[in-house]
Amino acid sequence: MLPASVSSYIDKNRQAFVDDLAAFLKISSVSTLSEHDEDIRSAAQWVLDQLENCGFEGKIYQTQRHPVVLASSEHIPGAPVLLVYGHYDVQPPDPLDEWETPPFSPSTRDGYIYARGATDDKGQFLTYVKAAQAILGAGEKLPVNLKFLVEGEEEIGSPNLEKFLREHRGELIADAVAISDGAQFAPGIPAITYGLRGLCYFQLDVQGPRFDLHSGGFGGIVENPAQVLANILAALKAPDETVNLPGFYDDVLPLQKSEREEMASLPVDESRIRDYLGVPEFTGEPGYSVVERKGARPTLDINGLWGGFSGQGAKTIIPARAGAKVSMRLVPNQDPGIITRIFHDFIEKNSPAGVKVKITDLHGADPVLVSRQTTAMRAAEKAIAAGFGKKPVFIREGGSIPVVNLIKKHLGQENILLLGWGCPDDGAHSPNERFSLDDFHRAIHSVATLYYEIGV
Amino acid sequence: MLPASVSSYIDKNRQAFVDDLAAFLKISSVSTLSEHDEDIRSAAQWVLDQLENCGFEGKIYQTQRHPVVLASSEHIPGAPVLLVYGHYDVQPPDPLDEWETPPFSPSTRDGYIYARGATDDKGQFLTYVKAAQAILGAGEKLPVNLKFLVEGEEEIGSPNLEKFLREHRGELIADAVAISDGAQFAPGIPAITYGLRGLCYFQLDVQGPRFDLHSGGFGGIVENPAQVLANILAALKAPDETVNLPGFYDDVLPLQKSEREEMASLPVDESRIRDYLGVPEFTGEPGYSVVERKGARPTLDINGLWGGFSGQGAKTIIPARAGAKVSMRLVPNQDPGIITRIFHDFIEKNSPAGVKVKITDLHGADPVLVSRQTTAMRAAEKAIAAGFGKKPVFIREGGSIPVVNLIKKHLGQENILLLGWGCPDDGAHSPNERFSLDDFHRAIHSVATLYYEIGV
Repeated sequence: MLPASVSSYIDKNRQAFVDDLAAFLKISSVSTLSEHDEDIRSAAQWVLDQLENCGFEGKIYQTQRHPVVLASSEHIPGAPVLLVYGHYDVQPPDPLDEWETPPFSPSTRDGYIYARGATDDKGQFLTYVKAAQAILGAGEKLPVNLKFLVEGEEEIGSPNLEKFLREHRGELIADAVAISDGAQFAPGIPAITYGLRGLCYFQLDVQGPRFDLHSGGFGGIVENPAQVLANILAALKAPDETVNLPGFYDDVLPLQKSEREEMASLPVDESRIRDYLGVPEFTGEPGYSVVERKGARPTLDINGLWGGFSGQGAKTIIPARAGAKVSMRLVPNQDPGIITRIFHDFIEKNSPAGVKVKITDLHGADPVLVSRQTTAMRAAEKAIAAGFGKKPVFIREGGSIPVVNLIKKHLGQENILLLGWGCPDDGAHSPNERFSLDDFHRAIHSVATLYYEIGV
Repeated sequence: MLPASVSSYIDKNRQAFVDDLAAFLKISSVSTLSEHDEDIRSAAQWVLDQLENCGFEGKIYQTQRHPVVLASSEHIPGAPVLLVYGHYDVQPPDPLDEWETPPFSPSTRDGYIYARGATDDKGQFLTYVKAAQAILGAGEKLPVNLKFLVEGEEEIGSPNLEKFLREHRGELIADAVAISDGAQFAPGIPAITYGLRGLCYFQLDVQGPRFDLHSGGFGGIVENPAQVLANILAALKAPDETVNLPGFYDDVLPLQKSEREEMASLPVDESRIRDYLGVPEFTGEPGYSVVERKGARPTLDINGLWGGFSGQGAKTIIPARAGAKVSMRLVPNQDPGIITRIFHDFIEKNSPAGVKVKITDLHGADPVLVSRQTTAMRAAEKAIAAGFGKKPVFIREGGSIPVVNLIKKHLGQENILLLGWGCPDDGAHSPNERFSLDDFHRAIHSVATLYYEIGV
């Protein structure tokens, strides 16, 4: 049970906490673009400052690329340990011209704060800091030992986190882990996520002639790399929208009957989602519902493609090269290593002799299922009910959080709470990313409650 | 026969003529990009100044977009009239980073002048001006009535030329037309072109969701516009490299036996061409030779494509939109209007309900065959033999020169001389476009000779 003093402190400091979030969101900590390396360092320092202000002891650890912040609250003998994971890096903000207000100038309107990282993951992660600050600010003592692990490479696949976890294993041992880097099921329907999709992400580069050619002079004798790319990309999907790689579905764990029933019972307003997305019709694998397709079935998407002339008007060339980014969302028990091999084999078989096709493996993540039958899960259910005023539903989410597998593997930890405070229409990775100020406030209540429920 | 005084004048002024060409090439008259509109006007003025310096009377005519230069030499009663067509506009220079020297800073090395427009069409066109200047400079009188028609919209499909020809029909009547906007068959093998391919050029824009989506959150339920684009582009070609549009080949005039024999007799160094292009293998329609495929058979090429994330690293999105430029080279008797309708029908049939696909018609040109049995052709043969020291071969070229059909249609003129002074490896439309200084010099000799042969 959350002491009334803490609850009241959270209510009184609602605006101050939003102001802190806005300060965090002003830092353009885009991890994939090296011109933002200085911003990445500023964001790590900002996180450490926040934790030190709560009396935590912490440090910024350099890795081969972006630093990790590690901090612990003052040790309480006998109390359980909760490890909180978050990430301070964000996705690139482009396409910039689609933002109503600039991505790194947080703007508050209609009950939302708009900025890149608002929900993914700065806003969600910050609730754990603000909950601790509220308990201490209300004059209480923390009821649990807290450890914070905050990285800056989540959006590029956490390439240096595994090494870090291996080297800092001793400092990271905990009784449970909490991660808020996902979403509620829908606005007003809070959720606990027990499944995540994995990821395989590739870049394809097709090299044709040494330079762009006049399509009049050479059209008809030279393999066009953009055509080769289109042929390969088209071949990756079957006409019924299933993934066309041989063996792709071999290791997919079928959904249990009880899960399918549970998913079918979730209230889905498909027309609201279509309106929000602006798509006239949904598509996807036959035989599965929207909830199943977006959370519990594997998919393949082209994330980008380029090549040749894209300016105004006409330029009659055969481009010298063309390329694409392609990724697959995986489900238990698909193995990113096996899928990577299948993908490479398929591309090689579909590459004609007149061009060179290069595949770059950009990142991968295992799919995840965590046990729902744990005391930590019961504590999280109570905490969410207290903060949001209603019991959470249990869901499988379509995104990937690579750290979850690393924590399972290197810390031997299965007690992982995936608590999404954002909403599916918050625009994570999209222009006009936002976070509901009400949800931010409710989540701080929930996290503070969680600290007490776990700590009891 | 060319008077010795003219021939000697051309030889003595070799460098001065190259300097004038360099001045012309410095003007970045890119017609497709509106930021170059001022350069377009400068180039038109430069052309008019050159012609006025030869005693021509001329004028710059505004059109809805880029101006046309029209000029005539002093009238010689009883002499035939030769209409010279050229264009002072050029293709965009991108990709800029592949130029060894900047595209609008002409650089002379190894016997070539390098710049955008060197061969297409500034260098080739200028030979007609310099030949007239040489005759007059040598103290001779022009043996022929010359009219120059020089436009600034060739690289964007000459959208305003038809109206201009209709309105200025009376001023343009001639006994023959000369156009040098193509190439020799190969270096050292001068050619007269009697066939040109036509063109249909389209832009496809596929609109999916309102904004880029997180591929984890929405992968599996939303049609991916980049995938739709790839599927459409792949469907345009059959596995054997033929164009897959129903009815595409219906109106193709089969090559005559004599033409195929003539084409087979042309000396083609395929391995030299492959090395120049940097492609390990040629490709294309089965059953036809390289010469036939690149000049006398229809093709389809993707000229560019774009969509989603193309930056460094990984961004896990479903792009909101994707697009491509697609064009077809047509041969006699394919009709761009019919092909356009076939293309639209095919795209509409292949567009799924979850996206919007928009087609923009960017430009079109009829294919061309001109008669080889004319006195003007015999004059051109003699002129080329005099300038290049060897008789020309007769070829069909893969590119399009939209003006040729307009001249046939509006001036009723069938006597069209297509005399290529450039070479296929001059890099028209490519980075490091160039023109051989020897060929420039030989071509001026040839044109001066042509004036006498036509004028006799």
